[in-house]
Amino acid sequence: MTDAHTMTGTLYGVGVGPGDPELMTLKAARILSDAPVVAFFSKRGKLGNARRIVDGRLGATAEELRLDYPFTVEIPVSDPRYHCEMASFYDAAAQQVADRLDAGRDVAVLCEGDPLFYGSYMYLHDRLAERYRAEIVPGITAMTGCWSRVATPMTRGDDVLSVVSGTMEEDRLVARLEVADAAVIMKAGRNLTKVRSALARAGKLDRAVYVERGTTPEEKIVRLADKPDDDGPYFSLVLVPTERRTV
Amino acid sequence: MTDAHTMTGTLYGVGVGPGDPELMTLKAARILSDAPVVAFFSKRGKLGNARRIVDGRLGATAEELRLDYPFTVEIPVSDPRYHCEMASFYDAAAQQVADRLDAGRDVAVLCEGDPLFYGSYMYLHDRLAERYRAEIVPGITAMTGCWSRVATPMTRGDDVLSVVSGTMEEDRLVARLEVADAAVIMKAGRNLTKVRSALARAGKLDRAVYVERGTTPEEKIVRLADKPDDDGPYFSLVLVPTERRTV
Repeated sequence: MTDAHTMTGTLYGVGVGPGDPELMTLKAARILSDAPVVAFFSKRGKLGNARRIVDGRLGATAEELRLDYPFTVEIPVSDPRYHCEMASFYDAAAQQVADRLDAGRDVAVLCEGDPLFYGSYMYLHDRLAERYRAEIVPGITAMTGCWSRVATPMTRGDDVLSVVSGTMEEDRLVARLEVADAAVIMKAGRNLTKVRSALARAGKLDRAVYVERGTTPEEKIVRLADKPDDDGPYFSLVLVPTERRTV
Repeated sequence: MTDAHTMTGTLYGVGVGPGDPELMTLKAARILSDAPVVAFFSKRGKLGNARRIVDGRLGATAEELRLDYPFTVEIPVSDPRYHCEMASFYDAAAQQVADRLDAGRDVAVLCEGDPLFYGSYMYLHDRLAERYRAEIVPGITAMTGCWSRVATPMTRGDDVLSVVSGTMEEDRLVARLEVADAAVIMKAGRNLTKVRSALARAGKLDRAVYVERGTTPEEKIVRLADKPDDDGPYFSLVLVPTERRTV
């Protein structure tokens, strides 16, 4: 840390948890009520989940720095335009944050779940953490929030947990599920037909639970085998808890 | 839920987070300050980490129900006495909790980290959740607390994360590490020689970070390759963050 740091603000990556506003930490609540600048990513026309979670918790004089994603519909990651446009967007967003830090103002960046566990805060961290003081305030991840609502033990003893993505190719998904005692399948909603088939092939469909918007008022929880359709929002999860073993 | 439930208390499994008391959730703080009974596991002669984390947060009239483990030195899981003695211990602990619930008093059980992610609360949950109202208050897991202190992105995009145990046989550990983009090795402290060898064979030793008592004043963080010895406490972790990819 150089002397220059004493003049600049601190970057906080603040995990605000899975959805229920009461599931943010005491530390997150303190940092957010004190932060002179609160930044968050949003899609055009929508405030975004992270900002909604902290409603009523920001300081009265806080500047809200909204970082609007450039796409209103998603460009697939495979499209070369995606990386190019996203890199430019994150560069510009980081510059807006840097301007506040250079002026000696702390900036708290809101992150659904946890800042370092999948998510967009990391693209600011990549660009700023070497130049400014950066502190991470961890948050309850979406998966942890979801399994608390299912209220079934996820992992015990020496269990192996695999966290995988529903976007993966089916054979790879089967291979990962077969060797795991417990599993979380992220981004399951748009891939439920494949996820269902992979779980059946791995012999784990009967233990799988589908969770949509866990810990929020819109929460839906259903055994995947009982879910009548293969529709779900992008960020819904499938949980495969460990098999019950009693000591 | 039967009518009998309206007369009995509620069982709360309360995650108190990884060690820093400010990393419990607002909900955990509320439940704990209101709970008429606060139960926690401890080893004879020691208060235990979970109880220490909530110091100063319990109601003035709360009953503290201490559940002392029967062993002062660890009996290996492979010893047949282990399962037998532990089962009896958890049965008796559950009965003590049930007595309070039957008397209409809520019982909050303290859990380091998260209640459903490795840990002892689950043995009470197994025995009580079908007979009483049970609610899980999720907590920041040890691994999430640790990676927040390392302040390096753990998983991005469609990464696969594997959570494994340092107690696993080395070849199995290598196999799991090879196919994961990011990994957490739990219970690493007593198994560091093996963990180091497995990471080297999987080509991931250079990315591995050793974390001991993360988020507490006794925290130690060091690149595993730079750690001069193979000593560490049982619950220390090794983190293998994803390889940096910039958008």
